[in-house]
Amino acid sequence: MPHMKIAFFWVALMTVSTVPIVVLAQETHADPFVNDSTLVRNIFDEVLANGEAHEQLRILCKDIGHRLSGSMGADKAMTWGRDVMRTYGVDTTYIMPVDVPAWTRGNLADGEARLADGTSLNLRITALGGSVPTPDDQYIEGPLLVVRHLDALDTLDARGHIVLFNRAMDPLLINTGAAYGGAFDQRGGGAAAAAKAGAIGVLVRSLTHALDTLPHTGSLRYDESLPKIPAAAVSTVDASRLAKLSKGAASPLVVRFRLNSRDLGSVTQGNVVGEWVGTEWPDQIITLGGHLDSWDIGEGAHDDGAGVVHTLEALRALKAVGFQPRRTLRFVLFINEENGNRGGERYAEMAQQEHRLGKRHVAAMESDAGGFVPRGVRMDALDDAVATVRSWSDLLAPYNLHYFGRGGAGVDIGPLKTLDPRPLLVGLVPDGQRYFDVHHSSQDVWENVHKRELELGAATCASMIALIDRHLP
Amino acid sequence: MPHMKIAFFWVALMTVSTVPIVVLAQETHADPFVNDSTLVRNIFDEVLANGEAHEQLRILCKDIGHRLSGSMGADKAMTWGRDVMRTYGVDTTYIMPVDVPAWTRGNLADGEARLADGTSLNLRITALGGSVPTPDDQYIEGPLLVVRHLDALDTLDARGHIVLFNRAMDPLLINTGAAYGGAFDQRGGGAAAAAKAGAIGVLVRSLTHALDTLPHTGSLRYDESLPKIPAAAVSTVDASRLAKLSKGAASPLVVRFRLNSRDLGSVTQGNVVGEWVGTEWPDQIITLGGHLDSWDIGEGAHDDGAGVVHTLEALRALKAVGFQPRRTLRFVLFINEENGNRGGERYAEMAQQEHRLGKRHVAAMESDAGGFVPRGVRMDALDDAVATVRSWSDLLAPYNLHYFGRGGAGVDIGPLKTLDPRPLLVGLVPDGQRYFDVHHSSQDVWENVHKRELELGAATCASMIALIDRHLP
Repeated sequence: MPHMKIAFFWVALMTVSTVPIVVLAQETHADPFVNDSTLVRNIFDEVLANGEAHEQLRILCKDIGHRLSGSMGADKAMTWGRDVMRTYGVDTTYIMPVDVPAWTRGNLADGEARLADGTSLNLRITALGGSVPTPDDQYIEGPLLVVRHLDALDTLDARGHIVLFNRAMDPLLINTGAAYGGAFDQRGGGAAAAAKAGAIGVLVRSLTHALDTLPHTGSLRYDESLPKIPAAAVSTVDASRLAKLSKGAASPLVVRFRLNSRDLGSVTQGNVVGEWVGTEWPDQIITLGGHLDSWDIGEGAHDDGAGVVHTLEALRALKAVGFQPRRTLRFVLFINEENGNRGGERYAEMAQQEHRLGKRHVAAMESDAGGFVPRGVRMDALDDAVATVRSWSDLLAPYNLHYFGRGGAGVDIGPLKTLDPRPLLVGLVPDGQRYFDVHHSSQDVWENVHKRELELGAATCASMIALIDRHLP
Repeated sequence: MPHMKIAFFWVALMTVSTVPIVVLAQETHADPFVNDSTLVRNIFDEVLANGEAHEQLRILCKDIGHRLSGSMGADKAMTWGRDVMRTYGVDTTYIMPVDVPAWTRGNLADGEARLADGTSLNLRITALGGSVPTPDDQYIEGPLLVVRHLDALDTLDARGHIVLFNRAMDPLLINTGAAYGGAFDQRGGGAAAAAKAGAIGVLVRSLTHALDTLPHTGSLRYDESLPKIPAAAVSTVDASRLAKLSKGAASPLVVRFRLNSRDLGSVTQGNVVGEWVGTEWPDQIITLGGHLDSWDIGEGAHDDGAGVVHTLEALRALKAVGFQPRRTLRFVLFINEENGNRGGERYAEMAQQEHRLGKRHVAAMESDAGGFVPRGVRMDALDDAVATVRSWSDLLAPYNLHYFGRGGAGVDIGPLKTLDPRPLLVGLVPDGQRYFDVHHSSQDVWENVHKRELELGAATCASMIALIDRHLP
């Protein structure tokens, strides 16, 4: 087991030596055990040999369960996350208070379409996050109007109708995230567009490539100047059937559905923050995080339990290999990514204040694209920082990390891009082919997360944070 | 749907034009629809929009099922494969006869360990491919000797013992195939090594990273100069338990197991070959293939149903986009990869004969590493050919194909490397993290193959074949 041997030497070296790692590193690798490739190898070895991410994710998913903002589950997860950070040895932990919405789904979400032969077709639906209930929690009923684009309603009279937005995610896009982005407007803006056209309710084709019978939820945005109408996700199988039946029908298909969701105002929860103070530049901050909140169906295993345990495991592994950060590492479990992003916005506000006080956010990394096998990272940064990260590509290739593209790095850390000087924002890019199969559905459960794939993601996060600390100017 | 539009233009162009595609391609891309990036885009679009690989794999796995060499399943699969090739429009098909072993597993494979407290521990086992049965199909029983390496038996007296080889696949290797290779000697050579030391039977820890209760089978090689002793794979959970119990035991653990496998000699089956004759250099041959035979537990979905349907879908897609090969494309479904590789060896013998007759095998590609999301290709070739393939890396990066390493390209096409001049051998490299979870086990079933991942592999094979045809000198 040569890898283990190297790992032990490394840990021993870190323990007996009082010389900070950075000084050794700058001695043109005088010591063969203290260079980037050994550091990265040790991190991966530690995570693959002794990783706790998979077991921590089991606890988060099974013992705590789902954890929508405002829920008891989210409260429990905050306490758990803080406890794990303490166990793993951060110097300080705190909760950064955030007011979050306390919407609840309710327990009624069903619907049907009446067919010409007198039978009916059950619809597998669930409320979109933030949807109002149907009036008095009773069924709303109306003729179905099937459209593919929001702007189709500009020229259609939808008064009294229930609108089905049925544009599928584009299967031709290799990047499933791009396909999601290309269909997302229906879920985010469909209710407002339909209300404007006079509709009484909205069904949105679930955002997944899979032809399945699961509704996939997600947030919507109402237009405050328009009536708020109830909106539900419908499974892709049912959406396809409705569209097919509508196409051939002499008269419009009549559908009905009901929801008993509730808007319970807002409550105070918060971002869970753990700090590991840097040895050399403690006022420079590198953030690593995922979001603690999840949708309230499934267990939020990939979205974003994976990002949460990536963050915690990165902390554990960096400690285990004897890494000594020059800058302060901040491990953050954000609240409210799914339906408001108030956690991410609050964090950026605090970062602005810190900048004014002389602290500096150098970089932030987020894992919020699932626990699948990592492909690389996506960067939202200035050219110099992008070039620095790309200079590590040979170092990271043995770990099957090949992608170093530009683009959004994560919803929670996104607001940090307005800081001056602008930080390097990095998003973990796991393979995305399976992500939307489970995303926001009842199938986003721990059993659907692969142990080694999850571990490789955690090791990638830890390696990136370490390399950023060592090499960013 | 801009991609669809381009695809339609392309097909239209190919249909109305009588100018072969290669001539257009050499006009420094005078026509914007006829260049490599458009060709590759069209292939991926075709496979992702209209792909039949997933459905063909369902037919192979569910309607035909497993198909060990010599079995009726293999016969049926040969007929099916030939029919699909004809449907997809090859110019000729034929069966290349191959004598294959007709070993059968039997229906008895169980065992137990007697524990100190009088209870017993059931062992989840299955015969290794080619194993002799236990004498008279009855239990063999003996004290257990647990070792990790074959050479440990050089200094141990194993007379009358049952040996358990319990070395786990190294979790620290990122490449799971390398971890498999590092543990493989136990399965391949364990029975011979144990027989040499006097053992009466062998259990081998299943070759998988997963801690599961499934035995994972695979072939063994006896030493003809030594007694042939029965050999079975045991699940990793059971192997770990046996090793743990043995470690603390005052006296050796007594285990017993039985197998009723049979060696039925050999029968004639064959490689299924479909040819699509080249327009310019019909005597130059590019082969694409996978192996039709599978183990007789599970359905051989990833191993190697995926490679079979990759091959068939590549043919279908190349036809659908109007590709006109300059060289002859040969689509080959090999027989007997799992327990003899007689199909691959027979194919190479025929290729040698063809070389003597003036034909030339320019390149061969194999898909035999599962239906998971593709990462790139591995090459076994001369430097010039490797450099040519690597020159396509920018072209293939948008499809998340980043890996262009050197190494074994596939068991079936491996024997072609002795040809002179040496052909370019290419192996598809899907992501390997999940492969050994199902490999050679009852879980290698169609349900565990992901439609889009399978399709991306097929499109990669088709693209590679097209690029090889267009660019290899």
